[in-house]
Amino acid sequence: MPVPLVIDTDTAQDDCIALLAGLLDPRADLRAVTMVAGNVGFRRQLRNAFLTLNAAGRLGDVPVHAGCRRPLMRPWTGAENVHGDGVGGLTMDDTDQAAEDEHGVDALVRLAAEHPGELSIAAIGPLTNIASAALKDPAFASNVGTLYVMGGSNNGRGNITPAAEFNFYVDPEAAKAVFAAGFEIVVVPWHPLTLERAVFGPDTLTAIEELDTPLARFFTRVCGPTLEFDRSVGIDGTTHPDSLTAALALHPELLRAGGRYNVDVETSGEITRGYAAMSWGVHGLEPNATVVEDVDAQAFRDYLTGLLARPVEPRRPIAGV
Amino acid sequence: MPVPLVIDTDTAQDDCIALLAGLLDPRADLRAVTMVAGNVGFRRQLRNAFLTLNAAGRLGDVPVHAGCRRPLMRPWTGAENVHGDGVGGLTMDDTDQAAEDEHGVDALVRLAAEHPGELSIAAIGPLTNIASAALKDPAFASNVGTLYVMGGSNNGRGNITPAAEFNFYVDPEAAKAVFAAGFEIVVVPWHPLTLERAVFGPDTLTAIEELDTPLARFFTRVCGPTLEFDRSVGIDGTTHPDSLTAALALHPELLRAGGRYNVDVETSGEITRGYAAMSWGVHGLEPNATVVEDVDAQAFRDYLTGLLARPVEPRRPIAGV
Amino acid sequence: MPVPLVIDTDTAQDDCIALLAGLLDPRADLRAVTMVAGNVGFRRQLRNAFLTLNAAGRLGDVPVHAGCRRPLMRPWTGAENVHGDGVGGLTMDDTDQAAEDEHGVDALVRLAAEHPGELSIAAIGPLTNIASAALKDPAFASNVGTLYVMGGSNNGRGNITPAAEFNFYVDPEAAKAVFAAGFEIVVVPWHPLTLERAVFGPDTLTAIEELDTPLARFFTRVCGPTLEFDRSVGIDGTTHPDSLTAALALHPELLRAGGRYNVDVETSGEITRGYAAMSWGVHGLEPNATVVEDVDAQAFRDYLTGLLARPVEPRRPIAGV
Amino acid sequence: MPVPLVIDTDTAQDDCIALLAGLLDPRADLRAVTMVAGNVGFRRQLRNAFLTLNAAGRLGDVPVHAGCRRPLMRPWTGAENVHGDGVGGLTMDDTDQAAEDEHGVDALVRLAAEHPGELSIAAIGPLTNIASAALKDPAFASNVGTLYVMGGSNNGRGNITPAAEFNFYVDPEAAKAVFAAGFEIVVVPWHPLTLERAVFGPDTLTAIEELDTPLARFFTRVCGPTLEFDRSVGIDGTTHPDSLTAALALHPELLRAGGRYNVDVETSGEITRGYAAMSWGVHGLEPNATVVEDVDAQAFRDYLTGLLARPVEPRRPIAGV
Ligand SMILES: [Ca+2]
Ligand SMILES: [Ca+2]
Ligand SMILES: [Ca+2]
Ligand SMILES: [Ca+2]
Repeated sequence: MPVPLVIDTDTAQDDCIALLAGLLDPRADLRAVTMVAGNVGFRRQLRNAFLTLNAAGRLGDVPVHAGCRRPLMRPWTGAENVHGDGVGGLTMDDTDQAAEDEHGVDALVRLAAEHPGELSIAAIGPLTNIASAALKDPAFASNVGTLYVMGGSNNGRGNITPAAEFNFYVDPEAAKAVFAAGFEIVVVPWHPLTLERAVFGPDTLTAIEELDTPLARFFTRVCGPTLEFDRSVGIDGTTHPDSLTAALALHPELLRAGGRYNVDVETSGEITRGYAAMSWGVHGLEPNATVVEDVDAQAFRDYLTGLLARPVEPRRPIAGV
Repeated sequence: MPVPLVIDTDTAQDDCIALLAGLLDPRADLRAVTMVAGNVGFRRQLRNAFLTLNAAGRLGDVPVHAGCRRPLMRPWTGAENVHGDGVGGLTMDDTDQAAEDEHGVDALVRLAAEHPGELSIAAIGPLTNIASAALKDPAFASNVGTLYVMGGSNNGRGNITPAAEFNFYVDPEAAKAVFAAGFEIVVVPWHPLTLERAVFGPDTLTAIEELDTPLARFFTRVCGPTLEFDRSVGIDGTTHPDSLTAALALHPELLRAGGRYNVDVETSGEITRGYAAMSWGVHGLEPNATVVEDVDAQAFRDYLTGLLARPVEPRRPIAGV
Repeated sequence: MPVPLVIDTDTAQDDCIALLAGLLDPRADLRAVTMVAGNVGFRRQLRNAFLTLNAAGRLGDVPVHAGCRRPLMRPWTGAENVHGDGVGGLTMDDTDQAAEDEHGVDALVRLAAEHPGELSIAAIGPLTNIASAALKDPAFASNVGTLYVMGGSNNGRGNITPAAEFNFYVDPEAAKAVFAAGFEIVVVPWHPLTLERAVFGPDTLTAIEELDTPLARFFTRVCGPTLEFDRSVGIDGTTHPDSLTAALALHPELLRAGGRYNVDVETSGEITRGYAAMSWGVHGLEPNATVVEDVDAQAFRDYLTGLLARPVEPRRPIAGV
Repeated sequence: MPVPLVIDTDTAQDDCIALLAGLLDPRADLRAVTMVAGNVGFRRQLRNAFLTLNAAGRLGDVPVHAGCRRPLMRPWTGAENVHGDGVGGLTMDDTDQAAEDEHGVDALVRLAAEHPGELSIAAIGPLTNIASAALKDPAFASNVGTLYVMGGSNNGRGNITPAAEFNFYVDPEAAKAVFAAGFEIVVVPWHPLTLERAVFGPDTLTAIEELDTPLARFFTRVCGPTLEFDRSVGIDGTTHPDSLTAALALHPELLRAGGRYNVDVETSGEITRGYAAMSWGVHGLEPNATVVEDVDAQAFRDYLTGLLARPVEPRRPIAGV
């Protein structure tokens, strides 16, 4: 039976690939896409989401809700230096596309309440929407089935700073609040997990390019700028933490190892804003999340490659592919 | 012309008196009461609000909306040691009373959008609802006419800690976000302003008691516990920061002096959580609020006493008066 | 009997006047001047101290020790925008003057150990030297008789920021450590005390000018730049927190009111670095200092004016008077 | 030519083994042992140092200086739960042993000044003494040849908290100051380095036991309690970060890989006190330390085992071996 799913996203690069999983995988019953401030400009992210829906041949099928346009307390910090426009310059006519009237946070609250204990959420951007939903509706955390969170590092290195991964850095208050809210959480940490298991190196990228399907071409264009940035910081490949998160929400069999941790997020340090403290059980703290420690990297690559091999055609032309 | 007003409150003691102003003053067009986590338990606060509506003879006339039940990021901190139940033991049958279906934050957003630039808000509790509304609707801050905030101290002493006044202490992240959101703000600081201008000493309290109206008896009972607490900390009288805030929203003529300040709130200190930095113009910071520096204390006392003298009768019996 | 005294100073403007008190008052037995990083460049401060010794006719009589050239943990922050060179452009030939070989911290430790319980210290700069001495010698805090500290505000406004007074701002870690170290401390806070009781307005300044003694001319030149700065921030006169501190160490009769407080200093806030939390007794914290709340302002002015009236001649010429 | 060396230590368990290296290795010219507050009570640490000197047959040969008895700003935090008395219950008559009159910080300053650019320091406790020396003498940092620091983790896990390694946690202000002071620093991080390369597992421990020399018996007793604690937190062996640090100071050939990093230490976070941010070069920060990334683990084990095999006899009896 398909998994009722919401993807909460700051749509750029790997967020698009994660959306493809939610849109194309028969295991997914994607109820909504909710947008949160993060990678690139908010309007840009919305356009990227519509573009991705179209690339998957599903434009118009899945509602896109605009959520919070900035973090709980702080001004928005983006990562346009990493992502550019977030879709490698692809464009389409989206003048007729608009987000739903319903706010993203209200959509999250409503969808969770409609299926208490069943809804999975893949939260692959800053956690502002999720924290807001938990604040608004005290039942939200328990109504959600499982919250998959891409964020933090498991006692490893950050990316935007040595201490912090981008999603938690952008809205540390939201991240802290989410881990205190009582969700059933599965965390996909940036490092070591995704750097060791979810980087697509030259071979995989070539294999994808050679598929030469519309989706493969979409992938190659969209992930191009990340690849360039990654290489500049010593990572030889494209990074796929968001799509791994979506994949795990749909295919728990990809998980090879995980542990119960107490996860908390620093909101007040001078050099540690957004640092995730993941305590592995020796500090006397109550576990509040399962942290993914290992996945079947080959199966994950095969999974994504398989999706990209599908002969899906966009409903309207995309320029730049 | 009456002022369209929302009172955002953590209803206990002086919040009740502020509500009376909003309910009885002909200058007030009280559109809604929105409830925020603060002084005492949330359900208790709702009951206190209904009790106050009834005491003012207006039970059923003004919608009461439940807003955020905890701060943006932190667990709720109350002040039940100061306030007890918040109404001095008064009770009534309120089994038929319930908050509106619409969430307090949504009510705030809607009401401000319905009267762009006209709505006054008296925010006399922690700023969680206001911050959430500004987060949800980017137009909220400009839709609100004037936001009157009871909170912080103007380079003076706090109450819950040396550094911090209660409302900002409870949700410093919300307070910080509100001062950054672009509102037209008038701040009523705890100290020195309200300690010097809005404490009702023995003479005033006796005068109120001698009115012997239902409202005067309500006042005496409701404010009794505060009086006891205040005396234990060296303040000889009842404190009325919230009702002063409501009064200022309705009667700008009470204001004798105010200045443009840059106000910011500490969220990360070790001993300064919730401290409000009010910069008086010499630190090169852009003003974002008007801080009330002096009011006509006698006129304020006369104003409140005048309201309490009214021969209003509760619609249903209140036990304990 | 004269008070054995050390003045720990970041010598500029009012520090010079405080030194005059220590040098000229017969109640003072000034054992040493110790220099700490603060107002202006360290070498500049040393030169200002020698200049002041000379102005008092005591060059060569009192050892000057160089202490810490930066705060415990942070880079040095000065206030040259306020103080200029700290002596209004006065100069003398000081090529033969040098600080003692013994480090200021060692001198403090030694002098306190030589007179257990008797030595008074007037700490009128950042508390780096005092904190270092307490760290080096566990007996230092109890060996010192009374530590007079100019710093912080008593639930009032700061100067360098809304929250913080300069001395505590520059080295908050030292200030925090000092209040935890077990000293017998008397605090002279910037506000409201010294702004209300130790500002010399136009009348006093004119009276001093009219004395036309070498010391009065020294005063007028040295305090000139502060006066200009003070007026630019709305204070009509010269500020004398440091000389008030020295005066109180020598003349306890100037004290009119003081209270026992718990004083702690913020080291980690975002906007509250160096804020002094002075708890007046209602927060359940153990008192660790006496905070001066009122002084005899007229007697203080008379005291300083009296010192400046003395017909002391510098031992060597001072250019610029 | 032997390396002029000071070991700055909070002597317990592996600190003792590090001292053995400094005392027995012919490459070491151990000029002094300086004691800093850390693992166990200060007096206890001094006794442990004398015991270790005796175990090495060198009691009386090397001066032991007492340094700072608490961190720069904070109260002392120990780790007696991990270390017990720090020497596994061994005792000797040390009533005639006392620390030098000269304070540890002064000894550090003097020794560095005596051999500008030549002295190596192995700092294997909190950095209070080192920070104090750099504060006292502006030339200290450049007078020191190389400062070997055991502390922090290289984007890995802490020990006392998820975020922090013990030495930096105990005195984060000192650690931060040291990395800003301009030393030539080599960092030996707790994780991953020492957990992966400097844990002695059952085989090594058995091999040492079977040496059955006085020093081997000393090792087995002294490291016993750590072993027990380590096993309780999932580490199957004894941990040797301190002795690895001393070994690297004497045998650079043990180093297999290291990188230039910018290292900074968190002093103000809520859950990140003492976290070391080690930036590996992609964040635009200037390198200020070499972080050891890999060592020859086998050679290190052989090195220590070789030292323990020596037929050294204590000068006076040690009870408990
Ligand atoms: Ca994302
Ligand atoms: Ca209130
Ligand atoms: Ca000074
Ligand atoms: Ca150690």
